[in-house]
Amino acid sequence: MREYSGLLTDLYELTMAAGYFQTRFEGRATFELFVRHLPPHRNYLVAAGLEQAVEYLENVHFTPDEIEYLRRHTMFRHIRPEFFDYLAKFRFTGDVWAMPEGTLIFPGEPLLRVTAPVIEAQIMETYLLAVMSYQTMIASKAARVVTAAQGRQVVDFGARRAHGGPASLLSARAATIGGCVGTSNVLAGQEFGMSTYGTQAHSWIMAHEDETEAFAHFLDTFPEGTFLLVDTYDVRNAVKNIIAAGRKPAGIRLDSGDVAADSRWARRALDRAGWKDVKIFASGDLDEYKIAELLRKDAAIDAFGVGTALGTPGDAPHLNLIYKLVQVERGGKIHEAAKFSHAKVTYPGRKQVFRHSTPGGEFESDKIGLADEPPNGAQPLLVEIMRGGRRIAPPEPVGALRDRCLAGVARLPQRCRQIQRRAVYPVRYSRRLQDMLEKVRRRVRRAAKK
Amino acid sequence: MREYSGLLTDLYELTMAAGYFQTRFEGRATFELFVRHLPPHRNYLVAAGLEQAVEYLENVHFTPDEIEYLRRHTMFRHIRPEFFDYLAKFRFTGDVWAMPEGTLIFPGEPLLRVTAPVIEAQIMETYLLAVMSYQTMIASKAARVVTAAQGRQVVDFGARRAHGGPASLLSARAATIGGCVGTSNVLAGQEFGMSTYGTQAHSWIMAHEDETEAFAHFLDTFPEGTFLLVDTYDVRNAVKNIIAAGRKPAGIRLDSGDVAADSRWARRALDRAGWKDVKIFASGDLDEYKIAELLRKDAAIDAFGVGTALGTPGDAPHLNLIYKLVQVERGGKIHEAAKFSHAKVTYPGRKQVFRHSTPGGEFESDKIGLADEPPNGAQPLLVEIMRGGRRIAPPEPVGALRDRCLAGVARLPQRCRQIQRRAVYPVRYSRRLQDMLEKVRRRVRRAAKK
Repeated sequence: MREYSGLLTDLYELTMAAGYFQTRFEGRATFELFVRHLPPHRNYLVAAGLEQAVEYLENVHFTPDEIEYLRRHTMFRHIRPEFFDYLAKFRFTGDVWAMPEGTLIFPGEPLLRVTAPVIEAQIMETYLLAVMSYQTMIASKAARVVTAAQGRQVVDFGARRAHGGPASLLSARAATIGGCVGTSNVLAGQEFGMSTYGTQAHSWIMAHEDETEAFAHFLDTFPEGTFLLVDTYDVRNAVKNIIAAGRKPAGIRLDSGDVAADSRWARRALDRAGWKDVKIFASGDLDEYKIAELLRKDAAIDAFGVGTALGTPGDAPHLNLIYKLVQVERGGKIHEAAKFSHAKVTYPGRKQVFRHSTPGGEFESDKIGLADEPPNGAQPLLVEIMRGGRRIAPPEPVGALRDRCLAGVARLPQRCRQIQRRAVYPVRYSRRLQDMLEKVRRRVRRAAKK
Repeated sequence: MREYSGLLTDLYELTMAAGYFQTRFEGRATFELFVRHLPPHRNYLVAAGLEQAVEYLENVHFTPDEIEYLRRHTMFRHIRPEFFDYLAKFRFTGDVWAMPEGTLIFPGEPLLRVTAPVIEAQIMETYLLAVMSYQTMIASKAARVVTAAQGRQVVDFGARRAHGGPASLLSARAATIGGCVGTSNVLAGQEFGMSTYGTQAHSWIMAHEDETEAFAHFLDTFPEGTFLLVDTYDVRNAVKNIIAAGRKPAGIRLDSGDVAADSRWARRALDRAGWKDVKIFASGDLDEYKIAELLRKDAAIDAFGVGTALGTPGDAPHLNLIYKLVQVERGGKIHEAAKFSHAKVTYPGRKQVFRHSTPGGEFESDKIGLADEPPNGAQPLLVEIMRGGRRIAPPEPVGALRDRCLAGVARLPQRCRQIQRRAVYPVRYSRRLQDMLEKVRRRVRRAAKK
């Protein structure tokens, strides 16, 4: 897998690149990446994926073999050789402003703003959309799951439900940004310095003569830190047998069945055995709704493992992130760009997001304005990340991104933080931005009538 | 990204590996990978992902750095050094049988069967599940989309909605296996020898002074094969202007709005201009339901681009593929393994799937039996792929996998092929398999009572 390949994009980005090159359209363009609407079950999103976006922008290039592939492509048969020479030297040389990962975001707010020669900015579209929308979607789900767990630890178990190995690394990372304490994914743990968790599966139990032998052999190998999986055959039988055997594990894990009832029963049994410090861990198709329901039923659970929902959230399986041209230099002049088709309005201009808080620190409202508007006491959220193709903001450890997200969720109004009902956080466009939109609208209408 | 890393797995696979190693559990085990149930909107699935699974099995290993990471992990602090020496030499040495990619499959039918020393078979679980469930899910969706298009071409536009760059390659591949003619994803096209498609985006139109200039510049660069995107401002205006300019494109693309009405209108306008050979391409949040609806409304569309639905199908965002122990060697003896918790029965034994067809060639029913049962005129679907860790079945080109899928869909009973209603294809378990299940059930009950 060529991670930084310039071909890791839609063909139309490259045909447009050839078109700009051949018609000598050499101006700089600004694109912004944002969502138009929140998915139905989301009150906010958690920005994630910037680190991988920046790594791609720093490293993207075309190998001779890739250029040869394009040269032989039917679409490119009339393209001048100079374009391929250009690709051979291609590097991203643009400027990037972005929301630091872990920042809470709302519709219309740019997560990322790219200003670069139009060809460079255009080719990056597909990769930026994919890597940022995926991680943002997972981090946003994780934040809800963690909220539902009310302070109990949540571990990402999503690796087997991720879209292949590399995607599993990103989902584990994004889940941790969203508030998980770590992941079952070992390579993700090593790669991003995150904690990894796991003990044994049903197959371990099934491979042995019986549960008692399976548990004993596991505790022989791992005398400390072991959670025993108790639902392979019969939960209560298993718990009784563990207590009878007299070797105290770190905890037990329930993965199916009536987890609320079984956990309460197990808690009492463990407590009666004097094992008050033995934890109960729950997993098995959990999400924020099921966790909330378990806690409402007084389930005696200390921590949760969440897999499928953090590999692909079923209640919001895609995030319709878009990457829109907002400004372009043409004939030496700057033009603001907007799109008006079918009520899908896109605001023109290079933007900044200004977040206002109450004196107590609660987030109050956001204003999307032009990049050069004064903050007037609000916090500008987009920060400069790359200048002239070079990174100027150092990478941040995942723990810091997680802290940012948790702090952000804590500062949200309560109505937006809860997971069951839709609540709208106030976001408005500045006066100057609205005026600019109307100006562009009139210009486009005039041009259409010509 | 270390593609073939042994750490690309859940931690519990490695703790179990250490457990098996330290307790000298050295027998061979057989695991099978299958789905218990179809997602609500699926009548069949299309097997995909085997090629990437085999590549992983052929290449998986642990680097010194990865072993060092495990050695320092809290869970592994009591593990003997010999285990880490074992990992340093670790290779997959097992046998694999699998459904060739593009084969139509049903619940309970193993897509893949691994027989290997228990540690090797166990560690592979997470990767195999991720890479095969993802591609199977996408190929299955694509087959429905292609069915809905009734012979019109469908192109995968999913790259920007995939879970990052590497996932986008796999989704493009799986979509093609499911019947798409190709993809917008250039690297996927190069990597897997698939056709790639694309011309220009809204940003191309917006970057120019007006649509007329934008279209002219694109046609200057690409005089052949160009589809012009006509919905940036006003579809009918754009089509009129293209016709008035007098330069015939290969086609036009509609990406939003009332595509059925606009396509019919555009068809008439193009025909009146004598441009009967100019194609109309539709895209924009399409899936099999929307395509069926468009065709029901007599939309004049020649081909479709489908993105989001082929990046992550919203109506079936996960496939609950599982990897279950079905046989294990313990103390020199072969034991059949099954799981009975909470009505989630897993059948024991090494299986084969036998597909019966009518004399006319239509698929009639499947029987899941033991691997050594005679086929009795049915087609055994699982074929031998790897022996002793070496691949014995050569890789197949994606085109051949696509042909297999299309041929399979054509042989499905009509009720299973249609996309709107649930229809159940008959799958039964053989007598010998049912007897074996009961035998294991009795053994497990006896063991639990001890």
